[in-house]
Amino acid sequence: MKIAIIGGGAIGLLFSYYLGQTHQVTLYTRTKGQADLINREGLTIVDGDKTVCQSIEVKQVEHWDGSDDITFITVKEHQLSSIISMINQQSKKIGSLFFLQNGMGHLKWLPETRAESIYLGSIEHGAARVKGHIASHNGHGVTRVAVYKGSDNLLRELLATTTSGFPFAFEQDYEEMLVKKLIVNLVINPLTAAFQVTNGTLLTNPFYYKVALQVFDEAAKVLNIHNKEEHWLNVLSVCKQTSTNRSSMLKDIEAGRKTEVDAILGYLLEESRAKQISVPVIRNYFNLIKGKEFQRGGD
Amino acid sequence: MKIAIIGGGAIGLLFSYYLGQTHQVTLYTRTKGQADLINREGLTIVDGDKTVCQSIEVKQVEHWDGSDDITFITVKEHQLSSIISMINQQSKKIGSLFFLQNGMGHLKWLPETRAESIYLGSIEHGAARVKGHIASHNGHGVTRVAVYKGSDNLLRELLATTTSGFPFAFEQDYEEMLVKKLIVNLVINPLTAAFQVTNGTLLTNPFYYKVALQVFDEAAKVLNIHNKEEHWLNVLSVCKQTSTNRSSMLKDIEAGRKTEVDAILGYLLEESRAKQISVPVIRNYFNLIKGKEFQRGGD
Repeated sequence: MKIAIIGGGAIGLLFSYYLGQTHQVTLYTRTKGQADLINREGLTIVDGDKTVCQSIEVKQVEHWDGSDDITFITVKEHQLSSIISMINQQSKKIGSLFFLQNGMGHLKWLPETRAESIYLGSIEHGAARVKGHIASHNGHGVTRVAVYKGSDNLLRELLATTTSGFPFAFEQDYEEMLVKKLIVNLVINPLTAAFQVTNGTLLTNPFYYKVALQVFDEAAKVLNIHNKEEHWLNVLSVCKQTSTNRSSMLKDIEAGRKTEVDAILGYLLEESRAKQISVPVIRNYFNLIKGKEFQRGGD
Repeated sequence: MKIAIIGGGAIGLLFSYYLGQTHQVTLYTRTKGQADLINREGLTIVDGDKTVCQSIEVKQVEHWDGSDDITFITVKEHQLSSIISMINQQSKKIGSLFFLQNGMGHLKWLPETRAESIYLGSIEHGAARVKGHIASHNGHGVTRVAVYKGSDNLLRELLATTTSGFPFAFEQDYEEMLVKKLIVNLVINPLTAAFQVTNGTLLTNPFYYKVALQVFDEAAKVLNIHNKEEHWLNVLSVCKQTSTNRSSMLKDIEAGRKTEVDAILGYLLEESRAKQISVPVIRNYFNLIKGKEFQRGGD
């Protein structure tokens, strides 16, 4: 299959490497500098004490023309608007699109996006970009995938050809899949960033645990969750499995980068407004994280 | 006047120095080490680029017998229970007591406290203990005083004899006086400790400002404040006047000490429970600060 991957962050590099083993992959980066770097040095993945390198075709994103069978869009939600414009400006027929953003904020862009089929994914890998051409694969998990619109043919073809070290799992209901991940993210990400602690600390510190429960309860009301206990146990289980990890939002705050707070808590706030449900603690953490970004000049 | 001061923290040292200029003061400390240190080295106050030293009588708190005209109790609210037991165990008649705690949590101890007259104070000085015998007087302000029970005779006598560098101001209504200070403390202290910023940042960071307003609104409901705007302007004015200061709660967290969160937010939570008013954001900050204490082993 001809696969395009847009975005040279940790997830873009990880997908380029693993899908590149069985498919013809082109990675599209925002900067020419990163494209040149990877074309020259190859793409390196650090996985525990194993380091692997692979040569790969990389272009600047302006050169993407939609002719690939599937295009994976791995940029963060707050970088999505320019990508969507680019997609909609293509004059030719576009292949299938595969969105891999956190949260559910990206759903609002999809109805107006030109594409035959649209797939959505929810990633349970831990990954970090070490340098422009090096990513570390910190936690092995699965990529959950679901159909948003169109046929599932290409998706099933993709699932049949993936390698064992990088599994995909088919999900029937894209909304349930995203809600499950969103709840995990909206409890773990803002609180670990606010408290500056590892994921596991939300379990071991009884006071932070109470705060996590406050945030979860407000979110469950807005998202109209029926199987609350199941979702809470899932949050606890992820905290436990990733107990020594520093969350992406904590890392973003520490590095002075813009976080995904809009895609995660911002989405919840919009929903709560539409449904007229009061979420004071979530509103507080939205402003707390925005305030931290403001302090660091991360805007 | 014969004056006793219980507590060798910043406030205890500051009061010992200034009241010692016109009265016969004995300072009572918890540890023999600190008493010996001050008896040997004298009491030093650093005030800007001026450093003054004064010899003073210091004893361990077990030797306090209530025979002084006024006893100032400067320990923090969470250290008060043992002091109250000690007071109530005295067999002789006890002079007037003067409580200088932050918050309003100490009011619950007063009805059962044996004493002719009880006075309350609200301190608007900035002070920090540098060493066991050295305090720095960072911000010059006023000590507001009011009668809780008994006669105001001794209080007026005290006010007539104080020095110009350390003024007292008489207030008619102890509750209004404490509420005013409590509101300032409960907005500034927990938020600066949570965000790890100076007091002025609550004004200059628009997101932190919104959080401050959330906390203030919940507190105003519980404390049944009618003149809300006046109180909010007072909070803003204190943030501005002390803009470069690090709050006592922030300093306590950074030093791994127990904070005054029980006296400040804990008191609000108790009141909200009694009045059945929901305060999710205040509850969140109570647990956030308790969580930080727990992380540092500050208990």
